[in-house]
Amino acid sequence: MARISQTIDVARAQILVTLKPSLLDSAGRTVAGSLQNLGFTEVSEVRVGKLIEIELAEYSEARVKEMCEKLLANPVIERFEIKEIV
Amino acid sequence: MARISQTIDVARAQILVTLKPSLLDSAGRTVAGSLQNLGFTEVSEVRVGKLIEIELAEYSEARVKEMCEKLLANPVIERFEIKEIV
Repeated sequence: MARISQTIDVARAQILVTLKPSLLDSAGRTVAGSLQNLGFTEVSEVRVGKLIEIELAEYSEARVKEMCEKLLANPVIERFEIKEIV
Repeated sequence: MARISQTIDVARAQILVTLKPSLLDSAGRTVAGSLQNLGFTEVSEVRVGKLIEIELAEYSEARVKEMCEKLLANPVIERFEIKEIV
């Protein structure tokens, strides 16, 4: 009996987009206040960003960087970090 | 001369909140379409989630999990992953 092995090649990239540290993160500040009101008084700061997970035919950091610069992040106020998920 | 060393103890936690895989991520689908229109035809799927970074007096996974369940994530439709940043 022949064994048929089908491999679907999908690469994955994880992108973390965060506001630059010098900018006020008003969403994060609101969340921090809410956590403190709920009794989580150990919380001093919260920053909120985006997590973007992409499935690609082939992983290329250069291409993913280009996606970030053209669409996924605003380079004026945000910075991004790219990781391949293996 | 006495050396004064001041240590500010701040722990950090990173929380990744994503929609459960069985749910349609309409934001992600829109981003995927835009990427393809921009020429990134290698992209097959995009999922968008939240990245939350917290500064705490002391790290406790149980406490951060409680924060997620009470405020940061919606357990009905989202799942979360907690990491200590060291």
